[in-house]
Amino acid sequence: MERVAIIGASMTQFGQRDSWIRELLAEAGLACLDDAGVDGSDIDHLYVSNMASGEFEGQTGIPNAVAHDLDAIPAYTARIDQTSSSGGAGVYSAWQSVASGASEMTMLVGGEKMTHRSTAEATDVIASLTHPAEYKHGLTLPSFAGLTARRYLHIHDAPRESLAKVAVKNHKNGVDNPHAQFQKEVDLETVMKSPIIADPLRLYDFCPITDGSAALMFCPESVAKEHTDDYVTVAGIGGATDTHVVHERDDPTVMGGVVDSSEIAYEMAGLGPDDIDMAELHDMFTILEFLQSEGLGFFEKGEGWKAVEEGITDRDGELPINTSGGLKSKGHPLGASGVAQIYEVYQQLMGTAGPRQVEAETGLACNVGGFGNCVITTILEASQ
Amino acid sequence: MERVAIIGASMTQFGQRDSWIRELLAEAGLACLDDAGVDGSDIDHLYVSNMASGEFEGQTGIPNAVAHDLDAIPAYTARIDQTSSSGGAGVYSAWQSVASGASEMTMLVGGEKMTHRSTAEATDVIASLTHPAEYKHGLTLPSFAGLTARRYLHIHDAPRESLAKVAVKNHKNGVDNPHAQFQKEVDLETVMKSPIIADPLRLYDFCPITDGSAALMFCPESVAKEHTDDYVTVAGIGGATDTHVVHERDDPTVMGGVVDSSEIAYEMAGLGPDDIDMAELHDMFTILEFLQSEGLGFFEKGEGWKAVEEGITDRDGELPINTSGGLKSKGHPLGASGVAQIYEVYQQLMGTAGPRQVEAETGLACNVGGFGNCVITTILEASQ
Repeated sequence: MERVAIIGASMTQFGQRDSWIRELLAEAGLACLDDAGVDGSDIDHLYVSNMASGEFEGQTGIPNAVAHDLDAIPAYTARIDQTSSSGGAGVYSAWQSVASGASEMTMLVGGEKMTHRSTAEATDVIASLTHPAEYKHGLTLPSFAGLTARRYLHIHDAPRESLAKVAVKNHKNGVDNPHAQFQKEVDLETVMKSPIIADPLRLYDFCPITDGSAALMFCPESVAKEHTDDYVTVAGIGGATDTHVVHERDDPTVMGGVVDSSEIAYEMAGLGPDDIDMAELHDMFTILEFLQSEGLGFFEKGEGWKAVEEGITDRDGELPINTSGGLKSKGHPLGASGVAQIYEVYQQLMGTAGPRQVEAETGLACNVGGFGNCVITTILEASQ
Repeated sequence: MERVAIIGASMTQFGQRDSWIRELLAEAGLACLDDAGVDGSDIDHLYVSNMASGEFEGQTGIPNAVAHDLDAIPAYTARIDQTSSSGGAGVYSAWQSVASGASEMTMLVGGEKMTHRSTAEATDVIASLTHPAEYKHGLTLPSFAGLTARRYLHIHDAPRESLAKVAVKNHKNGVDNPHAQFQKEVDLETVMKSPIIADPLRLYDFCPITDGSAALMFCPESVAKEHTDDYVTVAGIGGATDTHVVHERDDPTVMGGVVDSSEIAYEMAGLGPDDIDMAELHDMFTILEFLQSEGLGFFEKGEGWKAVEEGITDRDGELPINTSGGLKSKGHPLGASGVAQIYEVYQQLMGTAGPRQVEAETGLACNVGGFGNCVITTILEASQ
């Protein structure tokens, strides 16, 4: 089967934006058309990754509106929702539309508008994905993160500082990302002394509430070659779920969806963890970067924290993780995050990441919905 | 490319249900597993068609919960939303997952829980898909239907009664559908004297607010043959959009999305309108059955009303339309409707439609989102 290529990518400024979701999606979409050198009328499929425009803004049917804004009507369009991994799920839908032979040119645009709501309101919308019985007991996603972090530190005898170092590293990377919500370094002491949110996790262990959008253009590799010599291909992609009720998991420090989705992606790509040159992981909470780096096979179980301590995942380390700044400093507009992860991998493989550039021919992105409830792992390769 | 087969189908009782969305989806999903003779653990992809569980019930992340209920974890799962055509969009996603080679066994389950909200509240959720500028002027979907019906009757010199006859026909068909919300006939006088909703349309020109769910099982044809001799294949499928702002359309009595999506589906199937033996159309409002039957090429523009008058679309006519009772009598749980359309076509092609059975080897379903904003047309063929 012919490979699916990505020939264009864009992302908007992430942060607190005065634009509504439709405007954010159009902004990224138009920039992606420009980057790919494609007209809106060339798009035959348009997927929109978005969790909750209805809940956040009282506006639904957004994909049809965005198709209008991109001059893409009568392209087929639909909204893909997988909560915080809606972006990754959109990548999978876009891949399927091309791989199935249905599409010659598919745009994916993901986004979310959240900051006009209070943090409590936004958290409540997100918490509506948890099991009602757990939610009633106060188990929102930050609570799960706190409990899991405590368990991880305990069983692996890891220092609390190792979690803080994830935040320090990703903020440092974010300084060089002009689209990031926070383009500023934080030091270890600042993280360690920030207010407790879900013990042992503190404010700087959490990603912020963010507005933003990102877009990608997919087509068959044969079509990509008509447009450009430089592109990226999807070498492997896989999705998987874990239990809806988090307390039903045998070991809360193992993300089953990460393990299962990456196995599918590695097999499709004919690659293993050692072949990956850089990765974007879903660091919604610092602890998640450890769990994913272990679930993906980059490090042994219980060793993820050491990799951060030893600088292996620094930008100049053996396996740079979250060169974009991650969700931690870049921000986490739910439907955009999985798309923006691929945006970063794309820039790195194309050699256009500017001051963030690392040496990479193969990159991986792992997008996590809920507390590992749904996971998408995508492996990209440079065309040349 | 190998064809995609459907090897199982189910639907729940449609109507006012005491179950929540998750329970409705599980009910249809479990029945579909049973019908297909497949275990939940055999499913590798699970798509959930649903417009607004967050708005209607404050619960999101439903696909992961349903995967639990069907014992399908770690299957990949995502929610597909295309407003009132979410079901058809789910059919397209399920088709893509198999056609792309990613899946050997995909379940689609669609559903919506609406009746616990008032009709005004439910209509307001649905109206959130319209353009804010049109919405502000009172242009909800029923308003568009009234305006379009008036225009259609005027330019084609059609009698008001022809619209009422769609309701009479579909209610008559619904009597023999045990899953239908209304299993009762209505006569012409009852329709013509029912309260005006959006002049010239009256209460009986509209589908009801409904709870319900429906499910389908998709796999490659080669896998289908391992399970059964009798199955149905997807011969063609296509999706398309029309303008988001309805007043931007050149002719409001032509549904561009129907025309465009059916052209794609016909071409993929290598078939034309004359090859279709029966069809399920999206009669959310009676006028839509005329517009779709013309847009699909079954009848010339302006002739759809005559076909109903002449009995061509009756169950014993040349081209039976809405043998299930249609949305009009069966009900319209948004995310379920497009799936339930395929359920009906599947039963007809399998010869298991009981008292509703017609002679058919090829059937078509047309699922419409918004006021023709997004349309999916699917053509199915019997395996033998």
